[in-house]
Amino acid sequence: MSDMPKSATSTLGPVRRFSIEPPVSAYADAVARSGGEVVEVGPDTEGLIWTGSPDGLADVLVRTPAVRWVQLPSAGTERYQRAGMFDSDVVYSSAKGAYARPVAEHALALTLAALRFLPDRARATSWGAQRGRSLYGLRVLVIGGGGIAAEYLNLVRPFGCAVTVVRRQPAEVPGAAEVVTQRELFSRLGSADVLVLAAALTDDTRRIIDAAALRRLPAEAVLVNIGRGELVDTEALVAALQAGELAGAGLDVTDPEPLTDGHPLWRTQNTLITPHTADTAAMVEVLLGERIADNVARLVAGRPPVATVDPALGY
Amino acid sequence: MSDMPKSATSTLGPVRRFSIEPPVSAYADAVARSGGEVVEVGPDTEGLIWTGSPDGLADVLVRTPAVRWVQLPSAGTERYQRAGMFDSDVVYSSAKGAYARPVAEHALALTLAALRFLPDRARATSWGAQRGRSLYGLRVLVIGGGGIAAEYLNLVRPFGCAVTVVRRQPAEVPGAAEVVTQRELFSRLGSADVLVLAAALTDDTRRIIDAAALRRLPAEAVLVNIGRGELVDTEALVAALQAGELAGAGLDVTDPEPLTDGHPLWRTQNTLITPHTADTAAMVEVLLGERIADNVARLVAGRPPVATVDPALGY
Repeated sequence: MSDMPKSATSTLGPVRRFSIEPPVSAYADAVARSGGEVVEVGPDTEGLIWTGSPDGLADVLVRTPAVRWVQLPSAGTERYQRAGMFDSDVVYSSAKGAYARPVAEHALALTLAALRFLPDRARATSWGAQRGRSLYGLRVLVIGGGGIAAEYLNLVRPFGCAVTVVRRQPAEVPGAAEVVTQRELFSRLGSADVLVLAAALTDDTRRIIDAAALRRLPAEAVLVNIGRGELVDTEALVAALQAGELAGAGLDVTDPEPLTDGHPLWRTQNTLITPHTADTAAMVEVLLGERIADNVARLVAGRPPVATVDPALGY
Repeated sequence: MSDMPKSATSTLGPVRRFSIEPPVSAYADAVARSGGEVVEVGPDTEGLIWTGSPDGLADVLVRTPAVRWVQLPSAGTERYQRAGMFDSDVVYSSAKGAYARPVAEHALALTLAALRFLPDRARATSWGAQRGRSLYGLRVLVIGGGGIAAEYLNLVRPFGCAVTVVRRQPAEVPGAAEVVTQRELFSRLGSADVLVLAAALTDDTRRIIDAAALRRLPAEAVLVNIGRGELVDTEALVAALQAGELAGAGLDVTDPEPLTDGHPLWRTQNTLITPHTADTAAMVEVLLGERIADNVARLVAGRPPVATVDPALGY
């Protein structure tokens, strides 16, 4: 979770009146049980629980001039940044970390599926030859050092993997054999059996896995992306998979997204595409409700909320 | 692992000369590094490392009258029992427990795949709606209390599941919320989100999951079979999946096996079939080599080998 932007939150003070837009009863319950008052969207709104699409938020902000804090529904916030939202004095909290568990679980599901050629098997209509690699003892490279990466490391711990984490700033990551910065990524690709993309999308990480990076991966390696589709050069990924320069891929995010009908990725060998469902609406509602309850309790007491967006970083 | 049949192993004494049939250099190395002597199949053979099919073993035994111990290559031994092998004074060791890790890993891969509708997604050629359940906190029912079950429980520990283990005899199983005998199975089916079959095939477990058992499972439940195909009534399973009375299935073993071309299971919704590849030959060679080295070291020293088959139980 990013550090608090100190200037904004120190002037935030207690926030007591919250609006939920669009209305979701589970979130109204979360506000109420944490001591917040639920009000209609309007001049009384001090805190806004926003679970609509990024496009609709600007209109709501025009109608809520007193708003000082906004809870966003997603962990990734690049679309809000692109729309210029973070340039105001309003404090934004993302859902960073709230969905770490189901997303890390999905990353593990895709990892095992790709290693064991389950996409190819799901399409088979006849008994076949043995294929597959076991995850035990493999070398895993994770790009991203946030909550999803931490939980993924927790889930793969029983497999005794040697895990390298690539993150913006070096820091201790429990379960990682080493933590390196992006500068050292290229030198680590050649010895990766599993590459997991769990980074935020920024100017530094856009297409971080390009044709050169894919060439550097061993042909037996598999790629898992539960971050953002634009972390990968999709055209280069298709070419690598078709040429057998990569053993398989599990993608919960794509570029473009949704992936268009007829796109070659739909039929690339040993590739599994899930429609951004690592965390489904049902999973999200429970976990976002818990996050809202936590943040509202903090704000009512005049304490800073968690997972505030750093305007300079954009996440 | 089953208890030693005491009568047979107490008279076994040191075993020093081993034959490997068919010849596998990795297994000859394992015998040699544990202090055993590798000899041609014949009158000098005291211990036999057998990795052929069950059918060929009888012929080899005729040519090895001095054999006192046989290492079998599989954890399941029902085909050797059916052939009457266990009626002699020869001590048999199965590979029970040796492949627990990759098989438990495969069971987890199939569990996550079925819960998250990955078989359906692998067949899709278009973006789709969100579907899927998260494994965190679900209720898992495991039939079988051996090494695979133990390792599966180890792998799912981070998910905080409530696990019930069904086994022949009650015993403490680390990580299980409760351990019950087969008599109580039926009463536990109604509250299972995930049903994992990891039992040996015996007269007691054949078709242990029949039409009545499948009806008892919740419609949201998924079934994973990494034991033996005959643990399940396949016709009833197809019917349950087609009727939506079961959310999905992951099957590494089938009945018949290999599953015949055109069998309805190939196209049953959200069903993933892998061709008995939970442990591939490459994975097996490493792990069986370790088991052979362990057993040969024990036998040379006059100690009992591990995973001996109890003739009365047949596994």
